[in-house]
Amino acid sequence: MPILTHALVKHLSQLQLKSYRNFEKEFIIEGAKLIEECLSSGWEVTRIITSDPNQASFSMPDILTYVCDEAAIKKISTHSTPPSVLASVKIRPTELKQLMSGQQFILCIDGVADPGNLGTIIRTADWFGVKSILLSENSVDLYNEKVVRSTMGSLFHPRIYQSKDIVSDIESLKKSGYKIITTSVNEGKAELPNDNFCLMLGSESHGVRHKLEDRADSSYHIPGYGQAESLNLAVSTGIILYDLKEIKKLI
Amino acid sequence: MPILTHALVKHLSQLQLKSYRNFEKEFIIEGAKLIEECLSSGWEVTRIITSDPNQASFSMPDILTYVCDEAAIKKISTHSTPPSVLASVKIRPTELKQLMSGQQFILCIDGVADPGNLGTIIRTADWFGVKSILLSENSVDLYNEKVVRSTMGSLFHPRIYQSKDIVSDIESLKKSGYKIITTSVNEGKAELPNDNFCLMLGSESHGVRHKLEDRADSSYHIPGYGQAESLNLAVSTGIILYDLKEIKKLI
Repeated sequence: MPILTHALVKHLSQLQLKSYRNFEKEFIIEGAKLIEECLSSGWEVTRIITSDPNQASFSMPDILTYVCDEAAIKKISTHSTPPSVLASVKIRPTELKQLMSGQQFILCIDGVADPGNLGTIIRTADWFGVKSILLSENSVDLYNEKVVRSTMGSLFHPRIYQSKDIVSDIESLKKSGYKIITTSVNEGKAELPNDNFCLMLGSESHGVRHKLEDRADSSYHIPGYGQAESLNLAVSTGIILYDLKEIKKLI
Repeated sequence: MPILTHALVKHLSQLQLKSYRNFEKEFIIEGAKLIEECLSSGWEVTRIITSDPNQASFSMPDILTYVCDEAAIKKISTHSTPPSVLASVKIRPTELKQLMSGQQFILCIDGVADPGNLGTIIRTADWFGVKSILLSENSVDLYNEKVVRSTMGSLFHPRIYQSKDIVSDIESLKKSGYKIITTSVNEGKAELPNDNFCLMLGSESHGVRHKLEDRADSSYHIPGYGQAESLNLAVSTGIILYDLKEIKKLI
């Protein structure tokens, strides 16, 4: 059984920092369910750390499994009541061109700061079978622990690319023949294209940024009838994807 | 200018407790936007408490307005960084029969424990113009501060009745001619009725309880295509209400 050194605990706990994650190309997932989903989706689990020797059943010949006390788990976890098992996982490198490969539909998310919201959006997209997600550079980091947790395993299913320059990526999509559709709080419902397109969602408070909106071919609006000022972004995403899938038979 | 006594600060801070709220029939709302929405929706604001004398502009001749220091606000608020203004509001008494008055559609929510989820569901229902909401006794309290906040003002729009006995209330609805439709994670999509009906949503983890499901006339299912195990409850609510409103022209 390998030994969980202080240096390793330090390494793992620092993976809760975005800059360190990006440097090490690793992130932490917490809890048995997420680890199972990660393994069955073929992502590379580098280490399993558990305070419960029975959890060592996750262990495969090529995964280092550390059995430790709860205090060590507590140092690595961001939860106030940590689960008995967590794991470090290799970040899977993704390129913009992979999002386009064989995909008529790309979901683009701009400037979403709330980790729970981003996680729920990814989970919702996965429900409807979305395979390609483009995430702007000013959104919360994809491997933030709260994002990972709230995807409930859907993080491991679509290809998700966090952009370094979303405007340039949107230009690339346009050059490759994708129509760009933005969402709007105003009246007017776009005709959705029947071929390659990218749906852009902006943050709840600010919407899609102007520099992106300027590049859109048309905009899409969910009609409201009551007195609420807006819809939650994950709720909007669900409604639009339902409409695209069920009503318009796209995606 | 009235004086904010220690006794009053104690009263107001205790309104963050469900039992005390139910006894006093009052609750706390925090922030200028929520207070504006509350006033414009005709709810009875009993006191305004502010650390910013400019906020006293909310004051109407019949609303007591207290100007105090930030420390007093901090004692009353549940936020770690409290807003500069909050208010106490009278709970509006609601009866089951009011939900039925002139309404073909009632949304019923069973066993939702997460306050943010309940608030987002109410906000979503308000977006689609739902006027009547029935909330089970085992759901989180409607006047919980996090529920209130996450409704983003929609709390003040529909009539919402928190049941003391949901099974008996569902029986009453049935006797009054409402069809009961439940949501299901299994296959099969119900034909939605064209007249009076009540849509029941259950908690994400447990669904609608069996004793309620047994009383349903049919069940409704949102098809999934990807690998996600489930949808977030507020997202499901949005999709179903969109479908009812836009596609089936009900509600």
